[in-house]
Amino acid sequence: MNRKELIQQIREKESFLCVGLDPDIKKIPQCVIDECKADLDDGEEYDDSLAIMLFNQYIVDATAPYCVAYKPNLAFYESLGANGLVAYEETVSYIRENYPNHFIIADAKRGDIGNTSKMYARSFFEGDAQADAVTVAPYMGEDSVTPFLSYEGKWVVLLALTSNKGSHDFQLMEDQEGERLFEKVLKTSQQWGSKDNMMYVVGATQGRMFEDIRKLVPDHFLLVPGVGAQGGSLQEVCQYGMNQDCGLLVNSSRGIIFASNGEDFAETAAQKAQELQQEMAVELRKVMK
Amino acid sequence: MNRKELIQQIREKESFLCVGLDPDIKKIPQCVIDECKADLDDGEEYDDSLAIMLFNQYIVDATAPYCVAYKPNLAFYESLGANGLVAYEETVSYIRENYPNHFIIADAKRGDIGNTSKMYARSFFEGDAQADAVTVAPYMGEDSVTPFLSYEGKWVVLLALTSNKGSHDFQLMEDQEGERLFEKVLKTSQQWGSKDNMMYVVGATQGRMFEDIRKLVPDHFLLVPGVGAQGGSLQEVCQYGMNQDCGLLVNSSRGIIFASNGEDFAETAAQKAQELQQEMAVELRKVMK
Repeated sequence: MNRKELIQQIREKESFLCVGLDPDIKKIPQCVIDECKADLDDGEEYDDSLAIMLFNQYIVDATAPYCVAYKPNLAFYESLGANGLVAYEETVSYIRENYPNHFIIADAKRGDIGNTSKMYARSFFEGDAQADAVTVAPYMGEDSVTPFLSYEGKWVVLLALTSNKGSHDFQLMEDQEGERLFEKVLKTSQQWGSKDNMMYVVGATQGRMFEDIRKLVPDHFLLVPGVGAQGGSLQEVCQYGMNQDCGLLVNSSRGIIFASNGEDFAETAAQKAQELQQEMAVELRKVMK
Repeated sequence: MNRKELIQQIREKESFLCVGLDPDIKKIPQCVIDECKADLDDGEEYDDSLAIMLFNQYIVDATAPYCVAYKPNLAFYESLGANGLVAYEETVSYIRENYPNHFIIADAKRGDIGNTSKMYARSFFEGDAQADAVTVAPYMGEDSVTPFLSYEGKWVVLLALTSNKGSHDFQLMEDQEGERLFEKVLKTSQQWGSKDNMMYVVGATQGRMFEDIRKLVPDHFLLVPGVGAQGGSLQEVCQYGMNQDCGLLVNSSRGIIFASNGEDFAETAAQKAQELQQEMAVELRKVMK
């Protein structure tokens, strides 16, 4: 999906919500696991990856009207081994087939030397289950990032300023001119890609930092985790981070997908997603004509 | 495997060689693919992941006498989808069963917020195919690294100074006291783990940098990629990087596993591994009593 199409989706849905598909097996509602076991074919054995897949389908069906993007985090799939990776691929395929206008971000935080990053790019951008974007860690520099940028219509979402406590350890380091590491990442990486194939991860817990960031990347999309469970405020993010094309994808994972663990989990997820979408619509009307 | 056992292995084998299992399907010898196809059971279909698994078995059998560690890089497995991950798991299991004294490093360069890194740690350190160590990227700081450190006898290999061209983009950034990012990573991370559960990736193409690094981490093991195909010199690495316990694992991937793509690929890999082992034995005798 290209930039123009993404902006079009945001306009139509009045939403810039990204739903994080982080299906921790320990938090999946029991009713999903029970249904999964009841649905097994003869001779088929229950596996947690089947429950994750079914859970994701319910969540996607419930939230699709209110969001423009999905972000499966690979860790939650890989922790179940090869079957977990099948669940990831099936989740991506399910979204592709049923909701072809949704943007899919493989949250994998990869990055390795050039010939190895090329392999990772192949994992996410080729084959049957293609994401639109992959998150990449910048520590290894240019040749670890550029292999992901060689695919038409695909995106890199580069870590800049993350929302976790550990973000303070290195990302705020200042050089002799007072430039911080995350700022250097924002500046340097603009030589590798453009606003048409690169976004940045900027944590919502650092609201006022958006002002500094927008000076460096006025036009790029920012992927904002940390609204909701991690404590960021949507209004503050929009006040400082939004641009005339919206320029934001705000992610919520646990606050939506695990809002209830009863039989109403899907309706509750829909409701939480809709609440965020309605707040987003208000913010969007302030900037988009 | 703990530190004492690892040092014991290095002494016994007079080797600190790590063989990188990066089985790029495009470079696997045709004879392996042919054998794989000839060996299929009735109804079984050929898949590249089967050839990778067979290739790895040959390489491991050929090189085991000359190395103390194996380092499969996950990108080469993931690029083949879920079946590729099966090949990774089977490779790890094969080494565990047949060569239980070899140290296994999952080269995955992971790192995410705390609850997500915990999931990645589960992928590599639990279940049937357990690695001894996993490579981790430091960009997201403490809570992205510590979940990997909570497993008895398991290790984090943290990226410090990598061997690729892009390492110059951010890793050499200097703060106001002249401390570089990779040095800050070495210093700060010593509050999270110790020489008993943490190693560092230090690229061999930067020989003299080892002097600076050994001032900060005199006792830690360093995992050194970049000898061979990437251009580093073993003598230089040993001169500046070795300590009284050896303190080095030197990796070679392509220089061993793809040294020949004919029918003699396994013998040639053994020969290349032995050549490195013999050079290593000479270096080891200089420091270990």
